[in-house]
Amino acid sequence: MTNRLLETLQGSLPKAGPPIWFMRQAGRYLPEYRALRSQHGTFLDLCFSPEAACEITLQPIRRFGFDAAIIFSDILVIPWGLGQDVSFAEGKGPVLPPLENETQLKMLKLAGMTKTLAPVYEAIALTKARLNAETALIGFAGSPWTLATYMLEGGSSRTFSQTLSWAYQRPDAFQALLDLLAEAVIEHLEFQIQAGAQAVQLFDSWAGAVPDPLFSQCVLNPAGRIVQTLNARHPAIPVIGFAKGAGVRLQQYGETGMQALGIDSMTPLPWAIRQAGGKVTQGNLDPFLLAAGGPLLDQAVDAILQQTHGKAHIFNLGHGILPHTPIAHVERVLQRVRNG
Amino acid sequence: MTNRLLETLQGSLPKAGPPIWFMRQAGRYLPEYRALRSQHGTFLDLCFSPEAACEITLQPIRRFGFDAAIIFSDILVIPWGLGQDVSFAEGKGPVLPPLENETQLKMLKLAGMTKTLAPVYEAIALTKARLNAETALIGFAGSPWTLATYMLEGGSSRTFSQTLSWAYQRPDAFQALLDLLAEAVIEHLEFQIQAGAQAVQLFDSWAGAVPDPLFSQCVLNPAGRIVQTLNARHPAIPVIGFAKGAGVRLQQYGETGMQALGIDSMTPLPWAIRQAGGKVTQGNLDPFLLAAGGPLLDQAVDAILQQTHGKAHIFNLGHGILPHTPIAHVERVLQRVRNG
Repeated sequence: MTNRLLETLQGSLPKAGPPIWFMRQAGRYLPEYRALRSQHGTFLDLCFSPEAACEITLQPIRRFGFDAAIIFSDILVIPWGLGQDVSFAEGKGPVLPPLENETQLKMLKLAGMTKTLAPVYEAIALTKARLNAETALIGFAGSPWTLATYMLEGGSSRTFSQTLSWAYQRPDAFQALLDLLAEAVIEHLEFQIQAGAQAVQLFDSWAGAVPDPLFSQCVLNPAGRIVQTLNARHPAIPVIGFAKGAGVRLQQYGETGMQALGIDSMTPLPWAIRQAGGKVTQGNLDPFLLAAGGPLLDQAVDAILQQTHGKAHIFNLGHGILPHTPIAHVERVLQRVRNG
Repeated sequence: MTNRLLETLQGSLPKAGPPIWFMRQAGRYLPEYRALRSQHGTFLDLCFSPEAACEITLQPIRRFGFDAAIIFSDILVIPWGLGQDVSFAEGKGPVLPPLENETQLKMLKLAGMTKTLAPVYEAIALTKARLNAETALIGFAGSPWTLATYMLEGGSSRTFSQTLSWAYQRPDAFQALLDLLAEAVIEHLEFQIQAGAQAVQLFDSWAGAVPDPLFSQCVLNPAGRIVQTLNARHPAIPVIGFAKGAGVRLQQYGETGMQALGIDSMTPLPWAIRQAGGKVTQGNLDPFLLAAGGPLLDQAVDAILQQTHGKAHIFNLGHGILPHTPIAHVERVLQRVRNG
């Protein structure tokens, strides 16, 4: 029984076409998710209930037979594990009391994090035991820069003004935060691997908001530290780096040591493949096009299949699946990719 | 009396160093602007009062002696001129009743637009008469894609879901809107040139939100149509194209016919200069760094001066100046650029 995702991540080409999974494939567009969600309290309660998180992780596998399951969790479990409050207001995204000074920053503690996050690792172990060998299990974490933006802005941001203000005006404290987060990400991914994750993805979701002179400090250096540490400790576990908006920095991002590169929807795929220099690529179907459907969706799927023909590529979206995505569109893409 | 901005746009290198102006240099960070603003009704009232718009345009020239004045106006005067309501809620950005169907789209009328926008052209004529020959006067417009996002989303957006939904699900209607807007932009820039604008800038502010398969349709084709029409009619008037977030598409954007390329803060400037293939560049100092100040600001200014040494480059920000920017920081940058 082969595992097509892991085969591809090792650089070989599965005979039956590219492996396929979708970012945020376990989530709100699925009625079985919404049913289970309504029985639980907060979103974090759900993330920290191993049985529920396992069940949600398995839902899209049962329904669609994706080649990989990604553990149902959230990148903000790390700030939570470090001692910052995190909540999710329905339809409004995450809310955190923003870190306002260095005293608050120093109150974050790495020491107890993996104990607080133990339910995530339990969920991974449960899921691994229930998946068949054909389906890979992916663990993940947010990147230090991306986590820092939520922790300093107090949630999602359009301008990242607090984060950039820290970076420019309190550079030592900001660097200390990035360092702490890099250690936290390493530990969190390490525990996920020990619990059964067979590959891990680093979500550098806001890499595109980093001004050029800060890019090495905020994105490349932390990513390098994380991936090199993991590669040294777990040489068999591939790391997928997804620096959304990295644009012209994609090649440098890959050179930090990633085994595979996630490609967002804005990046021309043939260009990205050249920049990846032989690394595995993943992406870049537009989630809005998946939600829209129709002949343009078919054409885009065909274009990706054609552009990645003969390359080690993982079929995926350029960002997370949207809550209003019709299930029929997901089924159509799967069919097209598998019969392509 | 020479005009350093226009010299640079013609590709020659002014002896006294690069010309300098800042996007949104006429605005809220200036106490004289805030004083004048408080005496007027709505923000659009201000844009449509030729005397006030002229005075605001001149304020930063008097205070700082920038090498160019950009007419005080807003990109959303075009939807207003086409018949869509536009208002500005204090601190919340623009609000428009979003276009919801093709009937509403068909109610937009180009015919009366330049009559409605006549006060903008009057403001330009007034300003031109009051500027000395050393200071260039720049006109501007938003790009069709960027205008379409405001018109379809009803304001600023983080996801552009309505716009992308139109693009994918009503492609003919969406193309008709882009075509209408391209014509509107051409007319609006044409009238600004006739009133005295010596260069024009096209603000493709949301180019970075366009998924790759739509980039030609939404960004390259409209830009090419606009710039080629203007170049044919007014060969002496340079066009600066500023496609924020264009990233790896920068070279293609320049090839649509621009005389100069605005570079955002996320793009490595040496890379952008190579991609520009001899075209004039403009940018890319981070406005957050300008607001932060300190030694990092000095270093960034020096880096830009060094990277653009011997090239035709216009010193500017990578995006608009922020309202909380201290005036002393603007003065410091001007001094450093001029004595650099």
